[in-house]
Amino acid sequence: MGAQLAASIASHVPWGLVSAGLSLAAALASPGEIIRRASRLEGELKELLRVHGGARAGGEQKQGGGAVEVEQNKERFLRAYERLKTEVLNDRAFDFDFTDETKQWVAKMLDYNVPGGKLNRGLSVIHSYMLLREGTEVDDDDFYLACVLGWCVEWFQASALVLDDITDNAYTRRDNLCWYKLPTVGLSAINDGVLLKCHVQAIIKRYFKEKSYFLDFMELWNEIGLQTAMGQMLDLITTHTGAKDLARYRIQGYRCIVKYKTSYYSFYLPVACALLLNGAKLSDYVELKNVLIEMGVYFQIQDDYLDCFGDPEVIGKVGTDIEDYKCSWLIVQAMELANENEMKILCENYGKSDPECIAAVKNVYRELDIQDIFLEYESRIYKHLVSAIDAEPDHAIREVLKIFLKKIYRRKK
Amino acid sequence: MGAQLAASIASHVPWGLVSAGLSLAAALASPGEIIRRASRLEGELKELLRVHGGARAGGEQKQGGGAVEVEQNKERFLRAYERLKTEVLNDRAFDFDFTDETKQWVAKMLDYNVPGGKLNRGLSVIHSYMLLREGTEVDDDDFYLACVLGWCVEWFQASALVLDDITDNAYTRRDNLCWYKLPTVGLSAINDGVLLKCHVQAIIKRYFKEKSYFLDFMELWNEIGLQTAMGQMLDLITTHTGAKDLARYRIQGYRCIVKYKTSYYSFYLPVACALLLNGAKLSDYVELKNVLIEMGVYFQIQDDYLDCFGDPEVIGKVGTDIEDYKCSWLIVQAMELANENEMKILCENYGKSDPECIAAVKNVYRELDIQDIFLEYESRIYKHLVSAIDAEPDHAIREVLKIFLKKIYRRKK
Repeated sequence: MGAQLAASIASHVPWGLVSAGLSLAAALASPGEIIRRASRLEGELKELLRVHGGARAGGEQKQGGGAVEVEQNKERFLRAYERLKTEVLNDRAFDFDFTDETKQWVAKMLDYNVPGGKLNRGLSVIHSYMLLREGTEVDDDDFYLACVLGWCVEWFQASALVLDDITDNAYTRRDNLCWYKLPTVGLSAINDGVLLKCHVQAIIKRYFKEKSYFLDFMELWNEIGLQTAMGQMLDLITTHTGAKDLARYRIQGYRCIVKYKTSYYSFYLPVACALLLNGAKLSDYVELKNVLIEMGVYFQIQDDYLDCFGDPEVIGKVGTDIEDYKCSWLIVQAMELANENEMKILCENYGKSDPECIAAVKNVYRELDIQDIFLEYESRIYKHLVSAIDAEPDHAIREVLKIFLKKIYRRKK
Repeated sequence: MGAQLAASIASHVPWGLVSAGLSLAAALASPGEIIRRASRLEGELKELLRVHGGARAGGEQKQGGGAVEVEQNKERFLRAYERLKTEVLNDRAFDFDFTDETKQWVAKMLDYNVPGGKLNRGLSVIHSYMLLREGTEVDDDDFYLACVLGWCVEWFQASALVLDDITDNAYTRRDNLCWYKLPTVGLSAINDGVLLKCHVQAIIKRYFKEKSYFLDFMELWNEIGLQTAMGQMLDLITTHTGAKDLARYRIQGYRCIVKYKTSYYSFYLPVACALLLNGAKLSDYVELKNVLIEMGVYFQIQDDYLDCFGDPEVIGKVGTDIEDYKCSWLIVQAMELANENEMKILCENYGKSDPECIAAVKNVYRELDIQDIFLEYESRIYKHLVSAIDAEPDHAIREVLKIFLKKIYRRKK
């Protein structure tokens, strides 16, 4: 398949995203494989176009998706952080007791850990909220409240990352040393992680105490906190408990870890925040939750795929899932399909940092066509998600879900 | 002063606790000092008797303070733990996703960390609640709800201890290896600490969701969580940040650490829970909060005193505050009073585990009569607390506060 066919397919694809996906595939596979895949993809994409009818990118630009508007929203979002930080530092509950030294410490901890990521989760609260408002004017106050909730999601994630990095003995995060690795921090970072999560509740209280949905917010955050901790626990049990045993890595356990550890807070939480802010009752949106959780699982499977087969220059890091003995989607698939000999190779080499061991594992992945299996999964889940989105009765909800899917479908990083 | 005088004084003391305090003092001081102190104490105690009028232990036996009743309450409290544990393990939110292996892990973690302490904080919720009910019959359901809240306090403390032990690199807790020191646990304990705190909110929701004071509970726990984390942060900053510098250990900073890190959750929280359960509004009890916080500071000062001068056989551990460079009340007082030479000795020897260094520090404490200063503080704070209690308009609240003071006044362990 040449650039022409790729361009031709891309021009027919809903939300115009597939060109990225194809060039990723092209970078990774032999010419024969590419032609085989392209042919299969073309068929699937035609089907998707049929399902989608006339949906076009233009449709979403009207709803706040334009590049300039996205950039402006991000700037406003970043300004909101400065205000929230100042308020957290000057919480009147501690005014008389805490010294400037303490405040400076908390300020440094916040700046180091809260705003430095891609901000996807936080910004998606704003984006979702704008879509839910369906073109009605969003005044500065409402926009700011959406920013507050976006930052709460980022704050919550910062808490989880600070703690997980210690548990995993990680070295870098977002191109910096992990917070706990700083010589002046060390294991004090544990309490910083705890404190970050406390801040979320304090911020919610400050801004939403008088709102009718205040209790719903408190419960939502508590629920998500419990689910995320249970997911992390399941991950730790599966990966570290007892003798290392690859046979423990099964698809059901994998899905369960991802659902609880990542999906709830990364995909459901931002939309749930936007819904509550817009006056909705979350109990009316059970199906929406299921779709978002499924997208979160898809997102993590992509992450696992890119860790092994992505371009380090593009994803910004060299994957280490194989040497870290991670319960990755790839090893789960490989263990499912491997014959006796391949299973032996996997068991002998997985979780070792020797480059020859890593190469041996990757070689089994290639023998088993794991890359093809991923592409098949991606087509299948995409179709499933598109159907689920089309079945959503609420137009604004459909738009929210489309934006999420657009952001992740065939992503390269 | 002989045993006779001690017995004579003891027979006049409200709540009959001073004999313990005197025998502690007797074990630690020279005969001349003891006579001086006994004489001063006798004067103070007479004054206290005058303030207290006819208060007698019999008065509180009517309100659930009898030994048999206390033992029965403790048994019922322990049974409540088993029920709560089963419910946490079988939370329907996770029913379909979590395996028996996961449940067993959580069960083991709970049993290891939640119920093994002295249970003072948990039991004081029940005791306070019974007193607030002022003799009205407490049915099984209400009693159980008090137990639930008592366990929430213990659960919350378990979370803090699991995490603090990792931060402090502690080795034992409650005569066992620290949880994180178990070979199968390690730094997974960080997430266990997070999970324990999530359980508190989940338990509160399960039992109090329909109550009018549900929101007050959620806010109370969030507030206490933030205060405790801020206290721990202040402690870590004061003790560990930058160059070790004893001049940083001042009484104001000390009080602030103790207030936030310990007092709120150990003294205020149990009573606040009992009050809410009894239908009160916490905003009506600001003065009560201040008294309880002050008791908490007194309690910690006793802890610091016993760490150095208590009987290891009685307190159940050998104190290590000196070698651990702890911001203890003793070093704060010593730094306040030391001359240039003594200060030099303290700076050179504090925070070192060499027995000669520890002895040198203790020697300065003795030169500065730190033990006398402690006894003076104890008399002064006792008088202050008794006055504050007497100024409380509500009879039941006075009884609650008296029980707390009784439990800690001149404790030996």
